[in-house]
Amino acid sequence: MKRKPNILVSNDDGIEAPGLQRLVEELNSFANVYVSAPYRQQSAVGHSITIFYPLRTYEHMKDGKFFGIAVEGTPADAVKIGVLHFFKDVKFDLVVSGINHGANTAINIIYSGTVSAATEGTILGIPSIALSLTTFSKVDFIDASKIATKIVKQIWDDDDIKIHEGTLLNINIPNVPADEIKGVKITKQGKSYWEDAFEVRADPNGRDYYWLTGKMVYKDESTEFDIAAVKENYVSITPLHYDLTDYSTYEETKNWKLNK
Amino acid sequence: MKRKPNILVSNDDGIEAPGLQRLVEELNSFANVYVSAPYRQQSAVGHSITIFYPLRTYEHMKDGKFFGIAVEGTPADAVKIGVLHFFKDVKFDLVVSGINHGANTAINIIYSGTVSAATEGTILGIPSIALSLTTFSKVDFIDASKIATKIVKQIWDDDDIKIHEGTLLNINIPNVPADEIKGVKITKQGKSYWEDAFEVRADPNGRDYYWLTGKMVYKDESTEFDIAAVKENYVSITPLHYDLTDYSTYEETKNWKLNK
Repeated sequence: MKRKPNILVSNDDGIEAPGLQRLVEELNSFANVYVSAPYRQQSAVGHSITIFYPLRTYEHMKDGKFFGIAVEGTPADAVKIGVLHFFKDVKFDLVVSGINHGANTAINIIYSGTVSAATEGTILGIPSIALSLTTFSKVDFIDASKIATKIVKQIWDDDDIKIHEGTLLNINIPNVPADEIKGVKITKQGKSYWEDAFEVRADPNGRDYYWLTGKMVYKDESTEFDIAAVKENYVSITPLHYDLTDYSTYEETKNWKLNK
Repeated sequence: MKRKPNILVSNDDGIEAPGLQRLVEELNSFANVYVSAPYRQQSAVGHSITIFYPLRTYEHMKDGKFFGIAVEGTPADAVKIGVLHFFKDVKFDLVVSGINHGANTAINIIYSGTVSAATEGTILGIPSIALSLTTFSKVDFIDASKIATKIVKQIWDDDDIKIHEGTLLNINIPNVPADEIKGVKITKQGKSYWEDAFEVRADPNGRDYYWLTGKMVYKDESTEFDIAAVKENYVSITPLHYDLTDYSTYEETKNWKLNK
């Protein structure tokens, strides 16, 4: 039997979010769990870090006991300060971010604070996993936490599974009862995107303000893509990395004739 | 001779930043320039968008004339609302973000608001370019704006150059006199990274707060990487994309045995 892994848990919905709370309860069954998460909700922050202001932190208590570090900052801040400062004597085996309330598939990945926390774990050299439940409805995260934990445990236990340096896993769990989930699919980031618009409103003083609105344009029919896999009730696992170089056009670009 | 292109300019240093102001002056020499940029500095915001709050905007004036839209939001917000709302009748040929005060090479790319603005342009289907000057010293951006504009104009003029859908260009300009620049290199995102730490200070009430500090660990010797190319006085151009799928591990990952 393998030793208990040390897992840092973070998220972007904030330390009190049920998705994180339920996940920590489940992960405790096989792991030493440490929590460093944003103090409040930080959705759609992308991969931000706080450099112009200092960070404030609080010891977050639960049932009269220390639960984790709440960080007045972004998901990436929370992971950085958790690993490098508050729990610096812990050798972390995994960073797990989530469970996010809402899908992080297709274009949403690049705006995602949940994925950002896992990306930061990867940057710090720790195998990292982002977890999301693909619904915005009110849910209790009980089934999702069990499914997520089972998968995280398999990844830890199986010697044939290795998360390579520089890679993170982006896992999306469909919001259906456990027995309706068809299985696990390894996927690619989908091509679906938002058709955005701005809704103009006037404040009580007659000045305009703008709400971003949008509808998803669905471009992925094949379950080889994340968004389609979860639609078909598969748990979707996408290996991601943060080398943004577009190698598919790199060679062509090298032939451009450009003068300084 | 080609028609004048329509260019949307944005940045992350704010609409009054000299890097943007000088760039707009130069681009005006061959293009119709529209500006939609953050109201104030937004560095290290990553690819954030504002969804929980409405956006406020201001008409920014310069020398008594309309200069552009200042957005109380992120670089991605500014590009979105510029393209989709304020200048929605303009068919944009390019989105240009910058000139950023500081390099956006290697790991810095993923935290970069400058790159984020160009990414958003690409998402909106417009060929997009991020521009950065690789120094934090006080500079006037005059040489950099001329070099940047010359390159943007070549890209526009040359029928053999095509920025493919989904690709953006990340351009870093070394901070040396124009005649010391050796040329243009097409590069890959470097592997250099920050060795971060947190410095703890106590406020006047004795409560701790934390400053992120770090030093760059230089891992790129070859000028095929962005950070090394600018160090050797080349203008670095890296084609980037926002498909984060790690194709290098995708096939291996498909062989994992995971149960739901």
